[in-house]
Amino acid sequence: MKELVNRIENHLHTLSKYTATPNEGTTRLTYSVEDLQARNYLKEVMNRYGLEVREDGLGNIFGKMPGVLEGPSVLVGSHFDSVPHGGDYDGPAGVIAGLEVAKLFADSGLKPKYPLEVIALIEEEGSRYGGGLMGSRGITGKLSEDDFLALKDSNGMSTEEAMRSIGLDPMLPKKRDSKTMKAYLELHIEQGPILEEKQIPIGIVESIVGLTQLEVTVIGKPGHAGTTPMSGRSDALVAAAEIIAQLPELGIAKGEGTVITVGKLNVFPNGANVIPGKVVFTVDIRSTDENKMVKVTEETVNILQSYNQKGVNVTVEKQLYMAPTLLSAEIRQLLSNHCEKLGFKQTVIHSGAGHDAMVLAEVTEAAMVFIPSKAGLSHCPEEWSDANDIAKAVHVLFETAKALTEAE
Amino acid sequence: MKELVNRIENHLHTLSKYTATPNEGTTRLTYSVEDLQARNYLKEVMNRYGLEVREDGLGNIFGKMPGVLEGPSVLVGSHFDSVPHGGDYDGPAGVIAGLEVAKLFADSGLKPKYPLEVIALIEEEGSRYGGGLMGSRGITGKLSEDDFLALKDSNGMSTEEAMRSIGLDPMLPKKRDSKTMKAYLELHIEQGPILEEKQIPIGIVESIVGLTQLEVTVIGKPGHAGTTPMSGRSDALVAAAEIIAQLPELGIAKGEGTVITVGKLNVFPNGANVIPGKVVFTVDIRSTDENKMVKVTEETVNILQSYNQKGVNVTVEKQLYMAPTLLSAEIRQLLSNHCEKLGFKQTVIHSGAGHDAMVLAEVTEAAMVFIPSKAGLSHCPEEWSDANDIAKAVHVLFETAKALTEAE
Repeated sequence: MKELVNRIENHLHTLSKYTATPNEGTTRLTYSVEDLQARNYLKEVMNRYGLEVREDGLGNIFGKMPGVLEGPSVLVGSHFDSVPHGGDYDGPAGVIAGLEVAKLFADSGLKPKYPLEVIALIEEEGSRYGGGLMGSRGITGKLSEDDFLALKDSNGMSTEEAMRSIGLDPMLPKKRDSKTMKAYLELHIEQGPILEEKQIPIGIVESIVGLTQLEVTVIGKPGHAGTTPMSGRSDALVAAAEIIAQLPELGIAKGEGTVITVGKLNVFPNGANVIPGKVVFTVDIRSTDENKMVKVTEETVNILQSYNQKGVNVTVEKQLYMAPTLLSAEIRQLLSNHCEKLGFKQTVIHSGAGHDAMVLAEVTEAAMVFIPSKAGLSHCPEEWSDANDIAKAVHVLFETAKALTEAE
Repeated sequence: MKELVNRIENHLHTLSKYTATPNEGTTRLTYSVEDLQARNYLKEVMNRYGLEVREDGLGNIFGKMPGVLEGPSVLVGSHFDSVPHGGDYDGPAGVIAGLEVAKLFADSGLKPKYPLEVIALIEEEGSRYGGGLMGSRGITGKLSEDDFLALKDSNGMSTEEAMRSIGLDPMLPKKRDSKTMKAYLELHIEQGPILEEKQIPIGIVESIVGLTQLEVTVIGKPGHAGTTPMSGRSDALVAAAEIIAQLPELGIAKGEGTVITVGKLNVFPNGANVIPGKVVFTVDIRSTDENKMVKVTEETVNILQSYNQKGVNVTVEKQLYMAPTLLSAEIRQLLSNHCEKLGFKQTVIHSGAGHDAMVLAEVTEAAMVFIPSKAGLSHCPEEWSDANDIAKAVHVLFETAKALTEAE
């Protein structure tokens, strides 16, 4: 166990160095130099652990331990991108868990009947191309080849240009036949306070919250801040501010389990003495209850549309819609049994965040385990989890993967 | 007159090409490549018109026609930077007027007793370094050498680095002895609808509106948008939105002549699924009445401070305070007399925008003429003025400069 904890800490430490914002958290945007650095490290470890390494046309990384049979793989992993100024654990902890499950297989001398694949996914956060969950949406075909190639980052750089800039090949296949996948297992930090409060190292995730993401554009009339009287104005930022101030109440009114957030907002032209002519912002709506999510979305759109009668033009684009997802009952049972056998405390938990597992759950048996997050913090430099908890989860995942791959 | 109009149109056309955003208006930030292109053109024209060209330690450009006497100069000009995605006239029209006044002097064979100087000022808009009026504040010593060198743009680049990047020397003198200035004349577009509505080509500016600019920082607590319940949040953007929604009423309540604008706002970390931990925005408050401006500023600060009791931390920095400025009565009389002699319709007008003339008015006799802006639009690509109106104003400025330089 101690060696496993050391290896996990080494991986975490190494990956934490690949950030565009040293000393200000992890900023590892997809297809950036830091992505390439992390990617090279992960591939090097996969090779060292005896896995067959390949990348797909999205830049997802796979490290495969062949099975005795040609058959569908049991995938274990997570994503390795980050939000701007995020933490070291959201994503990488799960990729590292995948690597260490493979290492335990290799060290045990067991031969899996079905292949085991460690998987490291791109752009789960959507920090560069919006929407999020891009690696899993690409694999499952929910994001089409054309839609992928049409995406541009905020500097106008396409996915194709960005991939080529770090030596990836966007012409490789993207969608993966669902028949090649037997199961998907993902370890993730909880990103909330529950496991820490209960002092339980392992949460077995029953369901993942539903998620709707909107992009709102408010068009007003730019003009000089000094010479345009208050009465003649069509100020896109004042309208956006009025709208944003009304949104939290929509979430609060639905009670626990429903949240609404405006996380990203850009003003154009963004000069101190220019009346804003355009504001673009996101609205992120989540709920464990699909009806509540739909209701909050409708109420948001109603508020937005009412501003079309107030001197600005407001348009809304739905960028993402994911219903709440129930994870595999069969694998949850396996995870629970192995927790018990290994003597680790466990609890059933729900995920307030979206994860690649919810996308993959549509095409294969998917399951997740959570480990505690210190003070519940995530998406910030203070994000921290205990490598001992990760190690415990790795053992549970190893036993579960052994069962699923029918290793002997 | 026709040749003068042609020359003015040529200058405007040439300068309009030096933009970072072709087909999307003029974006000419101070010390940018586009600044350098415009600068080289202006210096070339100054040379061609027989002026002695020099630049100071701020990058301001001076083109001097020596006087018969060694004495203080009559300055004619404006600024040549722009807001992001602005127009072709705000600033350059006045610099071009300065060039053409000098050309009329040269063509007339007149010898000024006092020197005439065409002046092209930097960073009036504050689009790169904030605050604005940097060229005139530097010349008059209101911006100290140390404060100038401490300024950084949003990418962290200092004024010194930026100047050197286009070959300017930041070690040259900045402050100019006020005894070297006899008067400052500035042509500017109105940036409002009055002259066009009245069909009057020349507005003689009596006063310039007072201006207070604040920078507000709201600090909340960043966190994951999915896993942080609504009740546990400290969302910097929701607080900023509530504040911004309240500000327009403060201006409206003071009646005509008082305006308040939030033109620039940045969210940190600005990810769709991260609760904003920090928002920084500007507040621009203007009034023809200093008491009203002070009152609106106080009311704004009160609203801002009330949010310190609402779970966020709000700090305010006053970046700029300019009292309303009365321009030189003597020169206004000269301008008015020459308008009459030349047969051009004129009116008294007040400036809703701040201008370099208000800074220079503290150290010398300063005056301004406005020409009509189409539809009152400014700080946008649609900004347009008639070169015939600029030509008329050039003649009025020429006659006035002849009187002030005592040319014979």
